[in-house]
Amino acid sequence: MALNIPAEIGTRIEDVDTPCLLIDLDAYERNLKRMADFVSDHGLRHRAHAKTHKSADISHDQFAHGAVGVCCQKVSEAEALLHGGVRDLLVSNEVVSPHMINRLAAMATQARVLVCTDDAGNVDDLEAGAARFGVTLEVLVEIDVGAGRCGVAPGADAVPIAKKIAAADHLVFAGLQSYQGKAQHVHDYTERKAKIDEAVAMTRDTVGHLAAEGLSCDIVGGAGTGTYEFEGTSEVYNELQCGSYIFMDADYQRIHMADGRLIDDFENSLFLYTTVMSKTKTEKAICDAGLKAQSVDSGPAVVFSRDDIEYLGASDEHGVISDPSNHLSLGDKLKLVPGHCDPTVNIHDWYVGVRNGVVERLLPVTARGMCL
Amino acid sequence: MALNIPAEIGTRIEDVDTPCLLIDLDAYERNLKRMADFVSDHGLRHRAHAKTHKSADISHDQFAHGAVGVCCQKVSEAEALLHGGVRDLLVSNEVVSPHMINRLAAMATQARVLVCTDDAGNVDDLEAGAARFGVTLEVLVEIDVGAGRCGVAPGADAVPIAKKIAAADHLVFAGLQSYQGKAQHVHDYTERKAKIDEAVAMTRDTVGHLAAEGLSCDIVGGAGTGTYEFEGTSEVYNELQCGSYIFMDADYQRIHMADGRLIDDFENSLFLYTTVMSKTKTEKAICDAGLKAQSVDSGPAVVFSRDDIEYLGASDEHGVISDPSNHLSLGDKLKLVPGHCDPTVNIHDWYVGVRNGVVERLLPVTARGMCL
Repeated sequence: MALNIPAEIGTRIEDVDTPCLLIDLDAYERNLKRMADFVSDHGLRHRAHAKTHKSADISHDQFAHGAVGVCCQKVSEAEALLHGGVRDLLVSNEVVSPHMINRLAAMATQARVLVCTDDAGNVDDLEAGAARFGVTLEVLVEIDVGAGRCGVAPGADAVPIAKKIAAADHLVFAGLQSYQGKAQHVHDYTERKAKIDEAVAMTRDTVGHLAAEGLSCDIVGGAGTGTYEFEGTSEVYNELQCGSYIFMDADYQRIHMADGRLIDDFENSLFLYTTVMSKTKTEKAICDAGLKAQSVDSGPAVVFSRDDIEYLGASDEHGVISDPSNHLSLGDKLKLVPGHCDPTVNIHDWYVGVRNGVVERLLPVTARGMCL
Repeated sequence: MALNIPAEIGTRIEDVDTPCLLIDLDAYERNLKRMADFVSDHGLRHRAHAKTHKSADISHDQFAHGAVGVCCQKVSEAEALLHGGVRDLLVSNEVVSPHMINRLAAMATQARVLVCTDDAGNVDDLEAGAARFGVTLEVLVEIDVGAGRCGVAPGADAVPIAKKIAAADHLVFAGLQSYQGKAQHVHDYTERKAKIDEAVAMTRDTVGHLAAEGLSCDIVGGAGTGTYEFEGTSEVYNELQCGSYIFMDADYQRIHMADGRLIDDFENSLFLYTTVMSKTKTEKAICDAGLKAQSVDSGPAVVFSRDDIEYLGASDEHGVISDPSNHLSLGDKLKLVPGHCDPTVNIHDWYVGVRNGVVERLLPVTARGMCL
């Protein structure tokens, strides 16, 4: 990995090796502040999602902007952040294998550790792991509020699992995980809001069922960058779990606000930096950012701030860029906006943080590839 | 990374942590032997492409089966294999930045290093880098035989670049790089063969232009798993560069042979191993292999050897599996065939090699993420 660092502190942007991830530090810092202001203005807590950036450094920047902890999706991701000094970790996902539950519980000897469940048998396994390490795990019941993924049905089904958690010696019932992942990228405002209105209603109903049994939710968590204003003003959710807002991506920038304009709460701060590596044709250029430098699940990258050229498609190590006016030359460097930031970040070892055309920070992607 | 190893030698397959890459060692070894037999039977050389596996261990397995060297696509990938003991490295791609040319030339102090070019100015830069390190670089002229990517036009255009290489003090003209990347995944046999027939004609013509100027091609290289029989029997190509044959993937298994049957030269030996992590619905299951465990550019993974269930789609850390007969249970493990092996491998740190249900080899993905 030492050989794979694309720049040094002080390198001029035009000399950075490619392909690599660039962070525009000014835009990134504005994004940090905007979310912090929203959370503060609305009396919420922000448990910033580290699945986007997988970086202990960025988690610490988020703490400096008021975040109360991190969310992770995987035990190994949480471990990497723990090694980077993060001490409040919610695995916002289920952990089912006994071996991984042991790794989860081991972390709780050093940090506050929370996890989700949607299965009564899994509660037994979590209790066994926590007992083995003599620790306490805080457990959220995950409810499926429309994403159709993990989670029990909202309402009464959450109660027996919550009771079982509350009755376990080494577990604490901590509340609800209620994330509508399918709403985040719905481009139409009305349709997106309707999905969250439904999620809020289902969550409120579940909180009521639990309260009727004497179970109170310290945490009612969820929300992402596409919908945080809805959950954040719902008076049901008290913890937001936004991740992508720090970077944004091409797909997030296709979503619309109430007045029909494209979303502009947050700015693009993450770029896939690339070099023209072949220019043997007048009408196109070949760049060095292909499928091994980005995830194209939400469409390919988009060339930033250029309407004369277009990123047409990727093969493993190459990107094809249309160049109808033959503007590009061998060695030219371009900023691309990734189609989908999270799985693109997961491929890279380093962020190159740039301000005023010079590399100012080099951030390792601490939990890169940590999928266990 | 130490914490991210999904198994130990001797771990039973049902206890391997997921998601991870499994290699069926028996199938893998049969694939190695089949390609070695073809190459030997046809008097060819095999310069096996390491872009697929990014593993020094697998390169050495290929050497043991007669391969003469490796192809890499990136300088950093070649460096990783050099550190793993590989001593004959073709970067089957252009290297344009002065910094990366220096890294390329530095490798030539320890190993045979070859590289491609499609630009006369780039030849000057390669000569400068080789001179700086006092080494010789062997340089192939890349011609575009239909992929529409890198490479000069076939025929006369290759001659001045080849002459310039031959005249440079620290460069040797080594031949032609002539890879039709767009033909590899054409499912229809006749259409696929027609593309390679054209590529062969263009390559033969270019070899003739060079010969007329006294320039002989030690290497005429190209071919991939989808088309190797055509190049291998062309009597023009003398080096094959196949990579995917060792693993195969879901998309390669959609291509047809001359008799209309699906391709069966090579077997699936690479699997994305996954666990059912949520089972709250009767009609589907959620597994732990999503977009951060695979590249979906050629479609999502396919469940291996099961027609009762189907992998429907992926979000970042989850996969949705249809389960119409409610056959799956929490904790069940499944083998998935990746849609596209190369960019899927690039996400993972380890291969778990399995035989008779037990882990026998653990292979690091030596050049994982090496995209510079």
